[in-house]
Amino acid sequence: MSQLIECVPNISEGRRAEVIEQFSRELSQVPGVVLLDSSSDLDHNRSVFTLVGSAEGLQQAVVRLYSLALEHIDLRRHQGSHPRMGAVDVVPFIPIRQATMADCVALARSTAEEIARQFDVPVFLYAEAASAPNRRVLSEIRKGEFENLEAKLAQPEWQPDFGPAHPHPTAGASAIGARFFLIAYNLQLSTGDLKIANAIARAVRASSGGLANIQAMGVFLAERNQAQVSMNLLNYEKTPIHRIQELVKIEARRYGVQVTGAEIVGLVPQAALIEAAAYYLQIENWQPSLVLEQAMLDKE
Amino acid sequence: MSQLIECVPNISEGRRAEVIEQFSRELSQVPGVVLLDSSSDLDHNRSVFTLVGSAEGLQQAVVRLYSLALEHIDLRRHQGSHPRMGAVDVVPFIPIRQATMADCVALARSTAEEIARQFDVPVFLYAEAASAPNRRVLSEIRKGEFENLEAKLAQPEWQPDFGPAHPHPTAGASAIGARFFLIAYNLQLSTGDLKIANAIARAVRASSGGLANIQAMGVFLAERNQAQVSMNLLNYEKTPIHRIQELVKIEARRYGVQVTGAEIVGLVPQAALIEAAAYYLQIENWQPSLVLEQAMLDKE
Repeated sequence: MSQLIECVPNISEGRRAEVIEQFSRELSQVPGVVLLDSSSDLDHNRSVFTLVGSAEGLQQAVVRLYSLALEHIDLRRHQGSHPRMGAVDVVPFIPIRQATMADCVALARSTAEEIARQFDVPVFLYAEAASAPNRRVLSEIRKGEFENLEAKLAQPEWQPDFGPAHPHPTAGASAIGARFFLIAYNLQLSTGDLKIANAIARAVRASSGGLANIQAMGVFLAERNQAQVSMNLLNYEKTPIHRIQELVKIEARRYGVQVTGAEIVGLVPQAALIEAAAYYLQIENWQPSLVLEQAMLDKE
Repeated sequence: MSQLIECVPNISEGRRAEVIEQFSRELSQVPGVVLLDSSSDLDHNRSVFTLVGSAEGLQQAVVRLYSLALEHIDLRRHQGSHPRMGAVDVVPFIPIRQATMADCVALARSTAEEIARQFDVPVFLYAEAASAPNRRVLSEIRKGEFENLEAKLAQPEWQPDFGPAHPHPTAGASAIGARFFLIAYNLQLSTGDLKIANAIARAVRASSGGLANIQAMGVFLAERNQAQVSMNLLNYEKTPIHRIQELVKIEARRYGVQVTGAEIVGLVPQAALIEAAAYYLQIENWQPSLVLEQAMLDKE
C-alpha cells in the first residue's frame, strides 16, 4: 500500500456556503487526494478541510486551495472569533502511513516555497518544520493577527521563511508545517463537579507535571450534568492512549470518581487503537506483522 | 479497497521440500492472490498454505493446487500422524473484508463443482457450506480416512456433494467449505500447575458450559515451567477477544492465579484488535468509521 499523508488546511471563510462548497468540490477532484471531511464554524468564520493522499497530490491540492482563497477571500473584510493571519491561515502535513516526519517536513518546505513563488504570499514554516525555536508554536507566529502583519514582518526576527517581507494585501501570510497526528480524546467522569475534572487535567497534562505530549482541561457537559477531562494527544506513538487512560483513572480514584466512557472527536489512526489492544490484552509476542492486513502489506 | 477472502488449503505432503517449494512458487504467481505463509510439518507429513485475495483469484489458485497435487501426491504411499482423506485434504474459505459468509459459501460451492468436474475427485462441502448437519464437522467427514473411503462413499448418507461416488485412486476425496476466521490465542498463567489451566479451560469453553465459539485446553510449557490456557476463538465477532480474556482472569482468581501474558499464534484480523481497544478504552461513540483508514475506505 502506498504512502499516506494527511493535510488539514484552515481557511478564513466559514459563512458563505456556496464558496465553501466550491473549495470542497475542487479539492475532492485533485488526483491522488481524498477529501475526508470539511467543517465550517460560523462564529469562527473559518473552515477546516481534512485531506489524505500522496505528497504530490496534496501539494497540488494546496496550490489549488490558495488559488481559490486568493480569488474569494479578502482578509480586510474578514471578522470571526478565531485568531487568523491569512486567507489560508495554516496548513499542517501529518505522517500517517509509510511516511516519516522528515518526509512531511520536506513536503512543508517545498509547498511553502511553491506557494510563495506562485502567489507572492509570505510563509512561515512551523511546528516540526520550524526554522527557529520561536516559530514552533503557531500562536506565537500568529500573534498580532492580520491587522499587525505589516509591522511584524518588518522585524528582523520575523522575516518569513519564503516570500516577501510584507503581507499579501488580501491574503495576509500563512504558516505551513509538519506535526504529528493529534487525537482529540475526552474521558467522561462519574461526577458533575468541574473542579474534579480540572484537578485531574492538571495532574495528567505535560504543562503542569503530567505526561509529555498531553494537553488537558476540565469541561462541564451541561446537558449530561457530567464533568469531562478533555484532551489533545499530541504524539500517540510516544505517549500512547492506554497510558493517559490509566493515569486519568488513577488520579480520579483520589476523589472516588470513575471514568464512565471515552469519546473520540474526529478520527483516530488504527495503529493507535491496535497498540491499545496489545497493551490491554498483554500480548507477549506483539509485533504489527501479527495483524493479517499488515502481513499482507509486508508481502506486497 | 477491494474484497478480501482468505483460503487455507491443507495438502498431504510435508516432507519433500522441492515439491512443497513448487506449490509455493506456483501459488504465489496466481494473479489476484498473495501467499501469506506456508508451513510444513514433517511428523504430520502435511503442509498448510495461507492465501488471501479475490474470489476469482483464489478459485484459480485452488485449481492450480489440485493440478499439482494430482501430479505429485499419491495417498496410497502417504503416511503421517495427522488424519487425512485427500491429496488436497481440506480447503476452507474465510471472509476477511468486504466479503460475507454467504460469499464464501458460494465460492466454496462453485470451487467444489469446478474441482470435481476438472479432476474427477469427490468433494464434500463442510462447515458453513455443509449440505447436511452431519457434514458440518470436518472430523466426521474424514472419519475412516483415505483407507476407508471406498466403503464410506458407497453409503447413501455419504454421497459426495460433487464428483463420483468413489475415491480418486491417488487423490482420495476433499472437503471444501467456508468458516469464520479462527484466532489461535493463548493466555499464560502465573502458575506451573497444569490442573489449574485445565480447570480454567473447562470453565470458559463452549463444550463444558463456557462461552460460545471458544475451544480451550490446558497446556504445560516445560521450558517456561508455566501453565497456559490454549484456545481457538471460532467467531471473534460474536465472541470477541476481550470477553474471553476477562472471563479467564475471573476464573483464574479462584486459584489466586493471574494472566501474565497473551500469545497470538499465526495472524489476527485488525478488526478483532480494534474492537478490543474500543472495549478497554470504553469508547462511547464507537463506530468503525472513527478510524482514519476506515473513513478513507468509506470515501473511495
